[in-house]
Order: sequence, then C-alpha cells, then structure tokens
Amino acid sequence: MDKLRNEINQRLAELLSPIKDGKVKEAMRYSLLAGGKRLRPLLFLTTLKAYGMEYHPYLDIACAIEMIHTYSLIHDDLPGMDNDDLRRGRPTCHKQYDEATAILAGDALLNQAMNTILQVSMDDGLKIKILTRLFAASGANGMIYGQQQDLYFENRQADIEELQDIHKHKTGELIAVGLQLASLIANEDDYDIWSQIGFDLGLAFQIQDDVLDVTSDSETLGKNVGSDIENNKSTYVSLLGIEESQKRVDMLFKKCYENVYAMHINHGVILELLTIILKRVN
Amino acid sequence: MDKLRNEINQRLAELLSPIKDGKVKEAMRYSLLAGGKRLRPLLFLTTLKAYGMEYHPYLDIACAIEMIHTYSLIHDDLPGMDNDDLRRGRPTCHKQYDEATAILAGDALLNQAMNTILQVSMDDGLKIKILTRLFAASGANGMIYGQQQDLYFENRQADIEELQDIHKHKTGELIAVGLQLASLIANEDDYDIWSQIGFDLGLAFQIQDDVLDVTSDSETLGKNVGSDIENNKSTYVSLLGIEESQKRVDMLFKKCYENVYAMHINHGVILELLTIILKRVN
Repeated sequence: MDKLRNEINQRLAELLSPIKDGKVKEAMRYSLLAGGKRLRPLLFLTTLKAYGMEYHPYLDIACAIEMIHTYSLIHDDLPGMDNDDLRRGRPTCHKQYDEATAILAGDALLNQAMNTILQVSMDDGLKIKILTRLFAASGANGMIYGQQQDLYFENRQADIEELQDIHKHKTGELIAVGLQLASLIANEDDYDIWSQIGFDLGLAFQIQDDVLDVTSDSETLGKNVGSDIENNKSTYVSLLGIEESQKRVDMLFKKCYENVYAMHINHGVILELLTIILKRVN
Repeated sequence: MDKLRNEINQRLAELLSPIKDGKVKEAMRYSLLAGGKRLRPLLFLTTLKAYGMEYHPYLDIACAIEMIHTYSLIHDDLPGMDNDDLRRGRPTCHKQYDEATAILAGDALLNQAMNTILQVSMDDGLKIKILTRLFAASGANGMIYGQQQDLYFENRQADIEELQDIHKHKTGELIAVGLQLASLIANEDDYDIWSQIGFDLGLAFQIQDDVLDVTSDSETLGKNVGSDIENNKSTYVSLLGIEESQKRVDMLFKKCYENVYAMHINHGVILELLTIILKRVN
C-alpha cells in the first residue's frame, strides 16, 4: 500500500506543476500534499489490481478523486462552514493562507480534477462515462447534498435514517466512486456489488469518525476532536452509544468482506486495504 | 436577442429541476435566474448562428457557460473575497441565504456545468474538446488565476500591463470561451481569430466596467458603485482617466468589428450583439 500511496503523492505533485505560480497554487499544494490517507484513490487503484489490471494508465484518475476530496475538505473547513482550524495535523487552508485563497484553491482543485481526467489517454466513451459518474458523485445530488444536510442538522436532532442519508451522500458517494469507476474500467457487470460495498464502507467509515471524535485525541486524529458535540451534531455515538456504534462498524465490514469474496477477483489486495481501514486510528 | 435570452433562461431553470430540493438548490436558482445579461451564452449561440447552424442541440453548452459565470460571481461576492451585498439588483447569495449555502451553491453550479455538458448528445471527441477548453478557461490557469491576481493587487499599485493580465484571465477567458467553443463546433479554422475577438471584447468589457463603476449609479448597475475605489483597486480609470479609457473601449470594439468582417460568416447577428455590449449601461 505504501508504494501505491507514494506513487499517488508523487503524481499529485506533478499534476500541480503546470499551474501558474501564486498563492492559490501554494494553497493547492499545501492542502493536497498534506499527507492524507489517500483512501479514495487507493480504493480505485486497488480494485483495478484486484482484476489483475495494470493501473498506471489510470493513476491520474486516482489523483483526480483525491483532488475532489481535498477541495471538499478545504471548503468544509471555512469559517462560513464548519470553521475548523486543524486538518491532517496542520492549520487548515484558510488559517495557513486566508479565506479568499482557500475558496479559490478549493475551486481550482475541482477544476483541476476535471482537467486532469480530460487529459488521460483512453477511450473517449469510457472517459465520458467516468466523468459522468465522478461528477454526479461530487455534485448537487451527491456529496454537496450531503454537506447541505449535514449543516441543516446542526442544532437539530437527526434520527438514524436521516443520519444515514447525510453520510450516504457526504461520505459514501466519494468513497463508493473509486470502486464504481474501477468496475466501469475492469468489469461493468460487478458495478452494483461494488456500489454496495462502497456505500457500506462509507457508512462504516463515518461511524468510525463519530467514534474517534469522542475516543481519540487531536494529535492522533490530526483534526480537532469533540467538534461534533461543539456543533451540536447528532452522531451514531450520540444516538446509539459507542458500543452499539462499534458493533455496526464491525457488521458493515463483515458485509463488505462477504461481498468482496462473492466476486471472481484477486481478493487479497482489497481485503488488505479494507483491514487497514477497519483498524484505522485516524 | 430577447428570444435567445428567453430560451437560455427557460433552459437554465429546467436544468436545475433534477436537483434534490433544499437550500442549496434554492440558492442556485436564486443566483442563476436573477436575470443577468446572459452575455457569455449569447456570444456562443450567436456565433453558431453566424455560421448558419441550428443552435438548439447546443443550448445546454450555453447554459453551462452561464452556470460557471454565476458560480464565480457567488464566490467573488463572499465576505472572504470582495464582500459585496448587491448583485444583479438583488442581495448577493450569501446575504439572501448564508455563507455556507453560498459556498455550496457555487460549488454545485460548477459541478452542474460539467454534468450538463456531459449529458449533451454529440460526438464524444468533440465533447471532450469542448470540456477541455471550457475548464481550462475557468480553471487555475484561467479565470481563477485572474481572481487571485485581482485580490493580490488590492491595496497594491498595478500598472497597465498587470491590469491587462488580470482582466485577460478574470474576465477575458470566460467571454472568449463562448466564441472559441462555437468555432470548435462550426469551423475550427477560425479558432484563432475568434480567440482574438474574445479577448479584445473581454478587455473592452472590463474597461467599460471600470468606467461605469465611477459614472453610473447602483440602481442602473445592479451592484454597488465605487467598489473599486473602496477596495483600492487600480483601474483603467484611475490609471488613464475616463476619456482615455473610453477611447480604448472604442478602439477595441473597432478591432472586433474588423475581425468579424474578415470571416466568411453571417456578420449581422454578431455585430448586433457586439453593438448591444458597446452601448451597455450595466
């Protein structure tokens, strides 16, 4: 996994190099190369490997997914949104630079994700299919809808179904999309099962976040803890308690493992990544 | 022109209808359907007409250009950027709703612009060519670079060359792109001359803005006047005075007219639109 992660990080840096120098480029680099887990691009590349495919021709698609994830974090952290000052163990983009630069750096990363995939040399029809799924996942009916609902339920009580709907969109869409895009490339017949795995994994990931927000410390987590309580957000922990939340995480991972085994692929690489996520501490 | 403008407005409303209800959709509608001049989409559609082409199959591309323009206005108006409270004669998006909603509505419009073009039924290769030019124009080396430089030169003296570089990117790219995309569809041989016309027109348009900012009133303009002076921005007026600035506008339009006449197209429709822009009061 470290080899893959290094390839992603190196390529992300290369993909920013053609951008004109200035504060926005600096801020893009600062946030994009802050050393995240690279979970979303890893899910995409690992799924391609599970089909025995050479993944290098698609490395830039992995990088584009990470650019979209990073743009959403930069905008989420803004004072007008969650107003966070710590991210990936460092000051958030608007703290390190300024609000205007953070707004533009986020906008620029979303544009750059599009430009990056448009440059990939592959079949035009497949490229359009990939762009269509990716920007549906990140758009007004996908991730952004989740961000809106997340804000709507600040200082409002959400029940489990409402919470699940928020997470499906805010977190699930962009975690599922890597698996979905890989199956569009490698084997479209498996698309639905990969979608199922992606949304289950996304929900498990989010419940883990809720648990870590109350059980971890900001140094381990790389972001402020207790922020959910601060923003009066309903979480799995506040609705079900830590123990029941952890049970749900384990159940969802079990379901993911079973679905992975149901496919004729090289299971090892996927299971390794799932286990890394299952055991994550930040 | 009114017929075209109405078709654009009607289609823009239709293109938002599939979006899940919520504050972000409301804010997208509020800002997108606020009745702008629709200059950028009109330039695109009118250029197609100048080649005698049926423009209806490409109406959604015109709408996507307007979505990108509107997203950039919403983010430009944010407190962290220009902090404007009046736009198109109404409260800016963050004033009417809130900052978080305005940030997400801008993000959503940029995503929706991509999704809209991806749905257009046309040749895949041409679609990718169009997406590539459009998101290069709006991206980190295009419009966003201009926004960054514009902020950089607040409270800093810019000379005419620096001012021109700001405008070429901040205003020119998205005005030129409609003409460029139309020529990619209708006749690629004319691409360079349309680019020239686009950037000359964009510069003339921006100098007009500088002049109107000191000679007009906020009711006519639909936005606050004197904002350049407030933000200590160098403008053509502050550097050259009103009379010399107006001379440059007339000179640039003359050059545009000549370049239009140099092509074997139906000049009438383009000249009509250029004259509307030349005589604009807001």
